[in-house]
Amino acid sequence: MFNLNDLKEKLATWLDGSGPHPDLVLSSRVRLARNLKGFPFVHYANKDQLNQILVTVREGVKDFWPSQDGLFLQMDSLSDLDKDFLVERHLSSPGFGREREGGGLFVGEGEEVSIIVNEEDHIRIQVIKSGFQPQTAWEIADQTDDQLSRGMEFSFSERFGYLTACPTNTGTGLRASVLIHLPGLVLTNDINKVLKGVSQVGFVVRGFYGEGTNVLGNLFQISNQTTLGRSEEEIIENLERITQQVISYEEKARETLIKDARDQIEDKIWRAYGILRNARLLTSQEVMNLLSALRLGLGMGVISSLSLLTINQLLLLTQPAHLQKRLNRVIDAPERDLERAALVRKKLSKGEEDGWNVQ
Amino acid sequence: MFNLNDLKEKLATWLDGSGPHPDLVLSSRVRLARNLKGFPFVHYANKDQLNQILVTVREGVKDFWPSQDGLFLQMDSLSDLDKDFLVERHLSSPGFGREREGGGLFVGEGEEVSIIVNEEDHIRIQVIKSGFQPQTAWEIADQTDDQLSRGMEFSFSERFGYLTACPTNTGTGLRASVLIHLPGLVLTNDINKVLKGVSQVGFVVRGFYGEGTNVLGNLFQISNQTTLGRSEEEIIENLERITQQVISYEEKARETLIKDARDQIEDKIWRAYGILRNARLLTSQEVMNLLSALRLGLGMGVISSLSLLTINQLLLLTQPAHLQKRLNRVIDAPERDLERAALVRKKLSKGEEDGWNVQ
Repeated sequence: MFNLNDLKEKLATWLDGSGPHPDLVLSSRVRLARNLKGFPFVHYANKDQLNQILVTVREGVKDFWPSQDGLFLQMDSLSDLDKDFLVERHLSSPGFGREREGGGLFVGEGEEVSIIVNEEDHIRIQVIKSGFQPQTAWEIADQTDDQLSRGMEFSFSERFGYLTACPTNTGTGLRASVLIHLPGLVLTNDINKVLKGVSQVGFVVRGFYGEGTNVLGNLFQISNQTTLGRSEEEIIENLERITQQVISYEEKARETLIKDARDQIEDKIWRAYGILRNARLLTSQEVMNLLSALRLGLGMGVISSLSLLTINQLLLLTQPAHLQKRLNRVIDAPERDLERAALVRKKLSKGEEDGWNVQ
Repeated sequence: MFNLNDLKEKLATWLDGSGPHPDLVLSSRVRLARNLKGFPFVHYANKDQLNQILVTVREGVKDFWPSQDGLFLQMDSLSDLDKDFLVERHLSSPGFGREREGGGLFVGEGEEVSIIVNEEDHIRIQVIKSGFQPQTAWEIADQTDDQLSRGMEFSFSERFGYLTACPTNTGTGLRASVLIHLPGLVLTNDINKVLKGVSQVGFVVRGFYGEGTNVLGNLFQISNQTTLGRSEEEIIENLERITQQVISYEEKARETLIKDARDQIEDKIWRAYGILRNARLLTSQEVMNLLSALRLGLGMGVISSLSLLTINQLLLLTQPAHLQKRLNRVIDAPERDLERAALVRKKLSKGEEDGWNVQ
């Protein structure tokens, strides 16, 4: 079994740039919402009930998930910094571990599979895969769901399917999403048209951190809106189809840019590189936008001296809690901007061969 | 005797950064306005008279200025590009050679001494020295004036002194100025206060190209307003005194910046460096502003990997006509931005040891 501090030294597998289409689709995510029969939803549960739920899930997980392969975290025992850190790794949500007791988190090797207990629902199974592979993510989530269901009984209605705290999740309890980079469509001003089309066929678009977050670094999360009345396979297939379409729009936008504004695009990309290599102060928002330009540069063949892996590493390492975990202390925003810029300079000047760790 | 095309391969001596205080005061300039007795001012002179004036001055110059040591240019014979080129080198003014015939220009070795014929006055003697040395510039101008006056008679009134086309030049006919870099005062927002003080004691502040031009790159020209009722020595001494004061204000502003905003200043300087090293498109205005940050960085010891000479070279080389002279063809603004960025990258990556020429 590894511990929380091990995570900060590692890159989440879903960010390793190894999956299909990794320059456009950073990751594919599937989340299943489940609740235990015989317990009230978390909002109505008391402390004892929440703890009982956590114990039940923990026992169930033990049956198929050897403890040496995973990490179990009791949210109550974590510092605020650790909670923020987990949010940045997409393993938790901002309110989780703060709004109520009994929160628990199981994280598998490489952070591909995780199980969240007593967040909005009793159980949420999350699978994140690198690149564009919702189908694979779904298969793993489905398998985990099967394994988990052997040790406990889920709240299920013949009419509605899986019952969830929020009605929008009822039915399959499935939310599938891709995290996709669309700088071309943003630069050609076609992004709103494309996103409108996406939402008209039943998908939702959000920012990097999911629900309620702004779009940063031209990274969009596209996920299904409907969980009821469609099979899991249909939902996954639809997400794959719509993503495929968005990918082709983005590719066309890039062709247009190369044709009509090559100098301007190259200028934008190289300026981003120059600023990242030299700035002494960088906010996390600016870094995300500059890294977006580098990712575009890599995708368009303008820049070749760095790897997608380095860009993905920086995306995560430069987030506020990650910066502080590396330094092992809480620091304020101005000092973070200084440390962030120093880290980026070091990482970009050392190049990719230095791996994940930056000394 | 050298020709106009030789100039583009050389750096004007006054930009070589060799004089006193070269990081703050780029150059010191003295200009004397003279008119020939017996001829109307240029605005009222006809073509024959203008040509006679030019011939008279040319004969006079020959007596003390061996032709192999200088360049004589007949403005009528120059292309528009060459005329622009001379403006960028501070050897001419935008309208000169375009508004009337008979314009001539004598340029001495290193471009320190020049004589302009039939610009606003029949004769203007100009001396530009590197760094902060108005007194030396004045002495050379005075000597040139003496030499020139041996072969011709100037329009002079016992009551008013030297008579000039514009009454603001009447008297000594002397305009003395320094080109000074004041980014510290701009950043601390004290610049307007300081400039107001300067103008209250009879000095005028202008941009890089003199009269009617905007301030670019935090470069200010401070010159005397009064030419009448004061001796030449007084004018020069006053300019030296006021410049000395402005220098001390600028130095204090930089101390304040280092104390209160070190990170922000270093960030600004390094970003400028990063953009100059990497951009693919640069306007001449942006280059001047970025070079201003580099010059500040050099002065404050933040950057040490390049020389003042390189910065001064780029200041001149990146101007539109200089770019085109180097390429030997007329190109439009978008192509200039591309060529300018390429030149800056080459120059900064090769470093200072490559000298003035960039292949």
